Amino acid sequence: MKVIGKPTFLVDKVKALNNIEMMSLKAKEAGVLFRPHFKTHQSAEIGAWFREFDVKSITVSSVDMAIYFAENGWNDITIAFPVNILQWKEIDNLAAKISLNILVENMDSVEFLAKKMNNVVGVFIEIDTGHRRTGVDAENFETVKALAHCIEESKNLIFKGFLTHAGHTYKAKSKEEIIKITQTAMDKMLDLKHFFKPHFPKLQLSWGDTPSCSLLSDFFGFDEIRPGNFVFYDEVQTVLGSCKPEDIAVAVACPVVATHPERKEIVIYGGAVHLSKEYVLINNTPHYGRVIEYKSYMENKPKTIGYVSSLSQEHGVIRMDNPEINIKTGDIVIVSPVHSCLTADLLIL
Amino acid sequence: MKVIGKPTFLVDKVKALNNIEMMSLKAKEAGVLFRPHFKTHQSAEIGAWFREFDVKSITVSSVDMAIYFAENGWNDITIAFPVNILQWKEIDNLAAKISLNILVENMDSVEFLAKKMNNVVGVFIEIDTGHRRTGVDAENFETVKALAHCIEESKNLIFKGFLTHAGHTYKAKSKEEIIKITQTAMDKMLDLKHFFKPHFPKLQLSWGDTPSCSLLSDFFGFDEIRPGNFVFYDEVQTVLGSCKPEDIAVAVACPVVATHPERKEIVIYGGAVHLSKEYVLINNTPHYGRVIEYKSYMENKPKTIGYVSSLSQEHGVIRMDNPEINIKTGDIVIVSPVHSCLTADLLIL
Repeated sequence: MKVIGKPTFLVDKVKALNNIEMMSLKAKEAGVLFRPHFKTHQSAEIGAWFREFDVKSITVSSVDMAIYFAENGWNDITIAFPVNILQWKEIDNLAAKISLNILVENMDSVEFLAKKMNNVVGVFIEIDTGHRRTGVDAENFETVKALAHCIEESKNLIFKGFLTHAGHTYKAKSKEEIIKITQTAMDKMLDLKHFFKPHFPKLQLSWGDTPSCSLLSDFFGFDEIRPGNFVFYDEVQTVLGSCKPEDIAVAVACPVVATHPERKEIVIYGGAVHLSKEYVLINNTPHYGRVIEYKSYMENKPKTIGYVSSLSQEHGVIRMDNPEINIKTGDIVIVSPVHSCLTADLLIL
Repeated sequence: MKVIGKPTFLVDKVKALNNIEMMSLKAKEAGVLFRPHFKTHQSAEIGAWFREFDVKSITVSSVDMAIYFAENGWNDITIAFPVNILQWKEIDNLAAKISLNILVENMDSVEFLAKKMNNVVGVFIEIDTGHRRTGVDAENFETVKALAHCIEESKNLIFKGFLTHAGHTYKAKSKEEIIKITQTAMDKMLDLKHFFKPHFPKLQLSWGDTPSCSLLSDFFGFDEIRPGNFVFYDEVQTVLGSCKPEDIAVAVACPVVATHPERKEIVIYGGAVHLSKEYVLINNTPHYGRVIEYKSYMENKPKTIGYVSSLSQEHGVIRMDNPEINIKTGDIVIVSPVHSCLTADLLIL
């Protein structure tokens, strides 16, 4: 085994494969296309694990990621991010090579691309089903209609359907609330489909987000699901109830550089540049990661020591909940990350 | 000029050089060594700018950074982070090549290194002057004495003196409070010096942190200062009063991908993986960056549009304080970062 000397990203391949298999089976049983979001790992190597489960279509969140995965043999990619028209040339070049879908949410972008694009690209209209970040409000049929017609009339833009990311599930306080948010959002999408289907008989509905895809098994009326985080899961997903702690497939091993039992703290080499400053509030206290004793983690019987209570650039301060576990300078501890996508972005090279 | 198509880190070299010159002159006038902290930029190219001001000694916060800068011609480096004994071999190899100082704060590390090191390395004892992150409590003379003697008795560890990072200045609410924290912390260091000087006549005192180094000009009794952030400064430093907004030498240019005037928001391609999730509370609201109109920024007459109110992995949501400035999809806006060290870590390749 590799000796760990500095903050090191650990991926439990068996758990990640289990997570992929679970979601892949769920999609198969529900009769929807499984188009996993690769922003979570951004890695060609981990991406290749999905091929075992017959995955051929993927989602990414930037043009650069699309180019990277296309170079690594993926040829059916949706960029699920409001199109950045400043990168239209890269999009146009990529559309010449692979089956590419983009996302639009306003007329300026559609008109711009209708003029510029030389190659055929699939276009989803992003629908805001309550997240209030991007997308056309699901009740604003007029704007949706105008966009769909403008896409339809252009030479190289092909109208594919409606896509939503019900990201407000991340603010839910219980599984029941996630399911309620999801049902409301899905109903809005189905209303749109019902209204536009006569004019666009091939239109598709695309559904996202790990919390809802983990908790639901029925995606009636939808054509595809795009969860991403589920491949690794993390502490946020555990708090939401999307997964159990033992489903989390990633962790960061960090050297202990100081112990301060007088204030029940230890300090690790492992800071904001390794873990990210994402936190989750537990009892109104920010937690930047759950901390597990090393040996117990390796033996798959994880003992929680405490949590990361603050982060500087390279330092992590751990508040010990379990001070009877003896930790010394030079030991390794395991940090289970709050948001695995951001930690992976920092640590997967 | 390079066309900006995606989140792009901009460094204003003139401002950065001014910031370096200001700090370098201050150190010269105060009669202390200027040993800037290179963790802020982690860049050999930007590091080279310091040579114009006769800088020969630097600070870093990891063994890897020390190796990187040594490979780039720096041969007097202090790793201002509690020594990670798991990397003792890398430290030992580096100590054979350059003048290297490390930091200790507990007996376990000193005893370990005393046994292992084959090459001479300078050792500072880290003193906790109130920050309560790492270091020996400044009033704990017994532990300091035990460490100093153990270092002194070892063959390859050379006792250099005491180092502190009064990082609790970052929690101050006013310039006056920063100065008060600094004076208390400096007095503690001077007490230690007074006590230990008879036994260790060559011992040095090393002082850190940008807020205090920006606001003070007298470092009486100290031998060196190690500010880092000042080369770029950022929004946190502006709030603290360490700099004026016009001193900030870095920014991130981001494409606008959506506008939502109905809720006074625009959305940029520029998220947590570009800006980091560091925030500063202004009127109890988290701000992830100040947003400036592009043209006004380039003309050095910056007009603030609003602030980044939330961040996802790739999206930044901007709350418009100044809705009369018309921003369209496809425009570029400038984000002035909250914490330039973390933003630079994400964006300087």
